[in-house]
Amino acid sequence: MTTPFTVDEIIKGIEPIDADWQARAEARTAELAIPPRALGRLHNLAEQMCAIQRSLTPAIDRKAVLVMAGDHGVARKAVSAFPQEVTLAMVQAFVAGGGGINAIARHVGAEVFVVDMGIVPEIDADIITTNYRLLVSKIAPGTFDLSEGPAMSREAAKQALLAGFSHAARLIDSGCEVLGTGDMGIGNTTPSAAIGAVITDAGLDEMVGRGTGVDEAGLARKRAVVAQALKVNQPDARDGLDVLSKVGGFEIGGIAGMILACAYRQKPVVVDGFISTAGALIAATLCPAARGYMFAGHCSEEPGHKIMLAHLGLRPILDLSMRLGEGTGGALAMGVIEGALKVFKEVMTLAEAGVVKA
Amino acid sequence: MTTPFTVDEIIKGIEPIDADWQARAEARTAELAIPPRALGRLHNLAEQMCAIQRSLTPAIDRKAVLVMAGDHGVARKAVSAFPQEVTLAMVQAFVAGGGGINAIARHVGAEVFVVDMGIVPEIDADIITTNYRLLVSKIAPGTFDLSEGPAMSREAAKQALLAGFSHAARLIDSGCEVLGTGDMGIGNTTPSAAIGAVITDAGLDEMVGRGTGVDEAGLARKRAVVAQALKVNQPDARDGLDVLSKVGGFEIGGIAGMILACAYRQKPVVVDGFISTAGALIAATLCPAARGYMFAGHCSEEPGHKIMLAHLGLRPILDLSMRLGEGTGGALAMGVIEGALKVFKEVMTLAEAGVVKA
Repeated sequence: MTTPFTVDEIIKGIEPIDADWQARAEARTAELAIPPRALGRLHNLAEQMCAIQRSLTPAIDRKAVLVMAGDHGVARKAVSAFPQEVTLAMVQAFVAGGGGINAIARHVGAEVFVVDMGIVPEIDADIITTNYRLLVSKIAPGTFDLSEGPAMSREAAKQALLAGFSHAARLIDSGCEVLGTGDMGIGNTTPSAAIGAVITDAGLDEMVGRGTGVDEAGLARKRAVVAQALKVNQPDARDGLDVLSKVGGFEIGGIAGMILACAYRQKPVVVDGFISTAGALIAATLCPAARGYMFAGHCSEEPGHKIMLAHLGLRPILDLSMRLGEGTGGALAMGVIEGALKVFKEVMTLAEAGVVKA
Repeated sequence: MTTPFTVDEIIKGIEPIDADWQARAEARTAELAIPPRALGRLHNLAEQMCAIQRSLTPAIDRKAVLVMAGDHGVARKAVSAFPQEVTLAMVQAFVAGGGGINAIARHVGAEVFVVDMGIVPEIDADIITTNYRLLVSKIAPGTFDLSEGPAMSREAAKQALLAGFSHAARLIDSGCEVLGTGDMGIGNTTPSAAIGAVITDAGLDEMVGRGTGVDEAGLARKRAVVAQALKVNQPDARDGLDVLSKVGGFEIGGIAGMILACAYRQKPVVVDGFISTAGALIAATLCPAARGYMFAGHCSEEPGHKIMLAHLGLRPILDLSMRLGEGTGGALAMGVIEGALKVFKEVMTLAEAGVVKA
């Protein structure tokens, strides 16, 4: 498979998931020694995986989560409960293995990689060189304030997409069978809400939520900031790159790129929460066929997330009032998906069990 | 800890979960390097586990699922889509490792034990003696038809409870840190619906569902059978043993007994779906304090399950349209609970990560 060099080449190279393998998988499910489809969505998860991997023995033994990190010019408008310095602190925590995502990834057997897509500080060179799990594709030290103009140039948006694509493709080359999306970036529910509002056409009362926990005044400020961003930038909902560049973020572009890489390479991708799904909206706007490769890990507490998922036609696997991001919901869902694959591959057939219907 | 010999001794020996450990666990959660309670229900799961295990390092490394099997006299009223012979076939499938529960239990690292609490056929002696995972506590070869009188005597109901208690206690003695409930028994959504209707006072339209998949006529027949069972037997909703004996089943009694064993020994128990929750209703009626030791693994497709869970004050961990039973939903949820414990124990503190709030 040749490596694509442009966003257009990526989009042209993506094929839909395979309906024939889907049908074969459904036939296999019907033979299992359980009442018809009695394991509900576990069957759907396994069948979608068959249609993605073109196989009746789908496997996600080798798992990785890519946590895309970026800073946001709009953070100076006090849209978050935390200061911008926390982005770097959390990147360092992930590299040290001490974040929420690290604990959950260890639990499901996934490796965690962190990408500096454009945080404000420079990470110490010796931290970078001594940690193969820390990757650097810094587009710029934070985006511009999207409430006053475009967050980044169209060229920077393409760079972010291509960087995310490359990192994901390299993991796939190294044998990863499933990727999980993750994010870190103080202020990033603000661009995510803006992307959600543009692409799903939902109102800001529904789409803008409390993020890490702003108070009433903070929420009102955040809504006003998003409203201003949409007014100032007038993003074109049909043009994913336009939306990403005007009201997005570098880590969101990276997430969109990694999703496109999974679709391009016919690998499943487990999308995490609100920020990751904003990236998925960008990816699906650029290439609707990419949706077939997506699993929605969970439904976030962030109220707009449901609307985004419905727009993408995705049903979340978990619904546990989580709102951390980092990839935690997607990683936890990998365990459920893996259980579904074991059911598909390991349960006896009705014939083997000697069961006949009344 | 002395072994209790009567149901009354068990009930007297059960202490509520520990509010002090709950408070200490909440204080620990507040120190984690994430926004306040941003992992939602994962925090609650970990804290409940601390309150059960009286520890800030709760662990469920050693897991087992006990699948209680029994047959039902009411099966002759054609309340199931499958013939009674399937109960034995599935017990044999579980022993061979080929059931849905086996696949999911392998996935989460749980052992599966199957108990013949009272299926109709005798299991071949050489299958029993060569399989330490098959246990036999046959109260009788199937219950009586509950639509024509009590399903079993009050004495038999006590025996079923005590047998379930003993099997669970032995697993706890052998080092199990968490148990999952499971069931197998053609026809057993019928007694479960009857138990649910008596104890929650819900109507039969809500409480009686399609089980493994009866058609419209079968559903109407099932509702009429449950209505008749309640009318003929007049079970006393405040007396768990009366409800179990009149409209229950041997495997449901076994499940109630294993839940009481977990509460008595201060171990967590993950309750599976509709049938298991009928057992949990019996256990909670006998001893309300036992509820603190329960986790609701999932919300079943069987419509009455939601009502049962609400009555017990339990929120299901998963909601994946599953309706197989066998313990599958509870076992799958063990993976989520274990992820929650890893977050609780392994994530850095805010101080360690160098994060301060704005």
